[in-house]
Amino acid sequence: MLPATGNLFAALPAAGAAEEEFATLLTLPGVRVERIVSRGHSTPGSEWYDQAWDEWVLVFAGEAAILIHGEAEPRRLGRGDWLFLPRHVRHRVTYTAPDTPTVWLAVHAGEDAS
Amino acid sequence: MLPATGNLFAALPAAGAAEEEFATLLTLPGVRVERIVSRGHSTPGSEWYDQAWDEWVLVFAGEAAILIHGEAEPRRLGRGDWLFLPRHVRHRVTYTAPDTPTVWLAVHAGEDAS
Repeated sequence: MLPATGNLFAALPAAGAAEEEFATLLTLPGVRVERIVSRGHSTPGSEWYDQAWDEWVLVFAGEAAILIHGEAEPRRLGRGDWLFLPRHVRHRVTYTAPDTPTVWLAVHAGEDAS
Repeated sequence: MLPATGNLFAALPAAGAAEEEFATLLTLPGVRVERIVSRGHSTPGSEWYDQAWDEWVLVFAGEAAILIHGEAEPRRLGRGDWLFLPRHVRHRVTYTAPDTPTVWLAVHAGEDAS
C-alpha cells in the first residue's frame, strides 16, 4: 500500500448543497475515517442516529450542536472539539453553521462487524 | 460508556518543551486516537519510524514535513493535510514549525495486534 495523502479542505461541496457530503478517506479492517461537510444541515425531523458501532467525531472548522438522547441541552462543538459517541448512544445533529462549511472528521470503529 | 468530549487545543504544552507531547484521546479495540504536539521537534538523528501497525496522521495546525524512506523529498504538511502511513513504511519527521505548535491527530490501527 502506498502512502496516500490529501487535504481535508480539498473539493469542498459548493454552498447551497442540498445534502451533507460524506467522503471516506481511509478504510482499514475495523476502522473507517470519513470527512463530513455540513452547511446548515441537521438530522431530519425527529430522527435519531442509533449506530451499532462506535464513532469519534471532531469539528475541524465551523460550528455544530449534537443532542444526545436523554440530555437536556445539545452539546455545542466548535473548532477542535471532539465527541466520542459509543455504539447505541442515540444522537442527532441539531445545528450546523448556515454560512460557513462545518468540516468534520469522523472515525468509525467496528462498523464492519456490526 | 459515556459520550466523552474534549478539545484538541486544550492544555497545549508550553513553548520550549524539550519533547513532543503524545496524548491518547480514545482507545478502542484495534484503534487508538492520539494528539501529538510538536514545536520544532523532528525525529532524532538518523532514526526511522518502522511501525507494525497502520497510522493515519492529520495536521490540525502548524506545519510539518515527513520523509518517507525511498522518496527524494519530504512531504510538506500544513493545515488539513493528511497522510496515511501503512505499516512498515519507514518514515521520519524532518521538520515541524519552530514558532507555533504543530497539532497532529493520529489514528493508529491494528496497534494492539502487532
